[in-house]
Amino acid sequence: MPISTELWSERIKAQKPYIAGEQPKNSNLIKLNTNENPYAPAAGDALLRLYPDPDAAGLCAAIAEVSGVTPERVFAGNGSDEVLAFAFIAFFGGGKVYAPDITYSFYPVWASLFGAEYITIPLDAHFDICADDYLTLDGGVILANPNAPTGKVLPLRDVERIVSANPDRVVIIDEAYIDFAPDGSSAVPLTVKYPNLLVTQTASKAYSLAGLRVGWAIGSESLIAALNTVKNCVNSYTIDRNAQETASETISARAVFRRNTERVIRARDWTTAELRRLGFSVLDSGANFVFAKPPAPIHGEAGKSASELLQQLRERGILIRYFNLPRIDEYLRISIGTSEQMKALISALEELL
Amino acid sequence: MPISTELWSERIKAQKPYIAGEQPKNSNLIKLNTNENPYAPAAGDALLRLYPDPDAAGLCAAIAEVSGVTPERVFAGNGSDEVLAFAFIAFFGGGKVYAPDITYSFYPVWASLFGAEYITIPLDAHFDICADDYLTLDGGVILANPNAPTGKVLPLRDVERIVSANPDRVVIIDEAYIDFAPDGSSAVPLTVKYPNLLVTQTASKAYSLAGLRVGWAIGSESLIAALNTVKNCVNSYTIDRNAQETASETISARAVFRRNTERVIRARDWTTAELRRLGFSVLDSGANFVFAKPPAPIHGEAGKSASELLQQLRERGILIRYFNLPRIDEYLRISIGTSEQMKALISALEELL
Repeated sequence: MPISTELWSERIKAQKPYIAGEQPKNSNLIKLNTNENPYAPAAGDALLRLYPDPDAAGLCAAIAEVSGVTPERVFAGNGSDEVLAFAFIAFFGGGKVYAPDITYSFYPVWASLFGAEYITIPLDAHFDICADDYLTLDGGVILANPNAPTGKVLPLRDVERIVSANPDRVVIIDEAYIDFAPDGSSAVPLTVKYPNLLVTQTASKAYSLAGLRVGWAIGSESLIAALNTVKNCVNSYTIDRNAQETASETISARAVFRRNTERVIRARDWTTAELRRLGFSVLDSGANFVFAKPPAPIHGEAGKSASELLQQLRERGILIRYFNLPRIDEYLRISIGTSEQMKALISALEELL
Repeated sequence: MPISTELWSERIKAQKPYIAGEQPKNSNLIKLNTNENPYAPAAGDALLRLYPDPDAAGLCAAIAEVSGVTPERVFAGNGSDEVLAFAFIAFFGGGKVYAPDITYSFYPVWASLFGAEYITIPLDAHFDICADDYLTLDGGVILANPNAPTGKVLPLRDVERIVSANPDRVVIIDEAYIDFAPDGSSAVPLTVKYPNLLVTQTASKAYSLAGLRVGWAIGSESLIAALNTVKNCVNSYTIDRNAQETASETISARAVFRRNTERVIRARDWTTAELRRLGFSVLDSGANFVFAKPPAPIHGEAGKSASELLQQLRERGILIRYFNLPRIDEYLRISIGTSEQMKALISALEELL
């Protein structure tokens, strides 16, 4: 059965991808077909002289295994930023895409670069996504869940309402931080039921591989085929040999993944409680960071603004992040480190406040 | 002095790139600003938990050193295919780009995806680029030198004529194979004189790192700034930590580079002579491959077509490449392997012919 292209952007439907030379699995062949060097490089593994598997089949199989889907429903790329950039080309270029007013600030950049009209819908007063606002739209949707930089989780039932209300548009759920959210928050199981749902995830957060650049998307074969078309129109080999191997091994090591994730969650919950004790207003986070507003001045004392605290923490060797943007310019985003680092942060804040 | 954007595409002039969190060089800081995991990954180096240097400064310095330019004139990416894709967005999107009718077949794909009109100019009867054809154009230019799949080298004086005749348009010279060409063929020294010249190179060929995905561009600060703008609108971190490190080390190891390159050149010249002895018509190659047309039938015997030979070599475990395209469908492209592999190829051809 041919793959449906109904959900593809018009430009992608028209592309004829580049066809790279064959990369056979059989290593007994004399391979004189892709202009590789026959000699080992001066540094690194000797096999680096050969192109990587362009389909990253082993990596996609490892991702599929831990995600409970078949490998045909997985697309892997050079970080989930690359996967999302390809998805904007594949599904939103030449059309419209809706997103919350406060979310990952890369979304409007991709929309602008790849010719999509970017339309924002305000979060409510508690910084929550209102699913009702996303049910009668005339364009695609992208939502980060947990959202960034708020850390708030949209319940799966609301995700499903949005996906099911937009059968003719692609809905992307960017789950970079999902492994720190309550069990059952991921939309991956819904991808089998809804061909318009694309879920993206990353090895940069829960898998501790930000330095390796591996991310992926899970969705219907039609959506995955569109991402492969974009990839083969941009760069045939996006993930290097080392990254494919190290990411596969890391993703499959479930005990380490669970232990590290649990430690981060414990430190996050401790940090949230401590910040609240100090008078911060802290959003409930399902991510590996918290979003917190410093206490208001009391008894006539001068309070400290978020940007002042950012600067004063920096002077003490602690880096956190601040966004000088409407609605969130009184907040600080604090990544969760080790419990020792979080204790150092709380001590520094106690002194500063 | 502000950087000139005269040579940038209109779309790129209008972009506001994403700003990633700071990646400080000082490792004594408590780094809670980019949502990294504080624990080591299950596989690979512990430092992989941290994002790589987004500017790949060490790698750019290594490239600059061996290229005789300053690091500000270097842009590194995830393979030269990614660098070229970014260059099509930066300089050709929304405009026109001229290229030879026979060249790297990824060029028309990037043009189509990123909205550039792709106009071809025929190579002459000897498969040479005629510089005179490129002196009065109304768009950008991209030339592979040595060209692919012909392997033919355009003399530097002709490259300079084309670059100097098009001061208001970007001319890209794709030098993926330049290290196998005669000394003095590279246009890198011209980048200092001509702000409209961008030269791209790769670690995949002469440096034996096809599996690692590292390529780069050398040009004026304006052109490099445009590529950085595109990168920061697509993916802030394109080259992973391992790749930055291994590529820097490999590029700096000049003795290995020279020895491997010389061995490939010797095997290429031997293969060219042997193929000619067997009656092949072989183009003079400055690359790590040869482009050869099988001998015509003699004395009433049936000759073998290029596609027949491709198939029969494959049955003997030797992979080469064939392009079923106008003007070159009687040719075979043969990558240069070890001298033993090339002897095996010649023996197989002797038996088949």
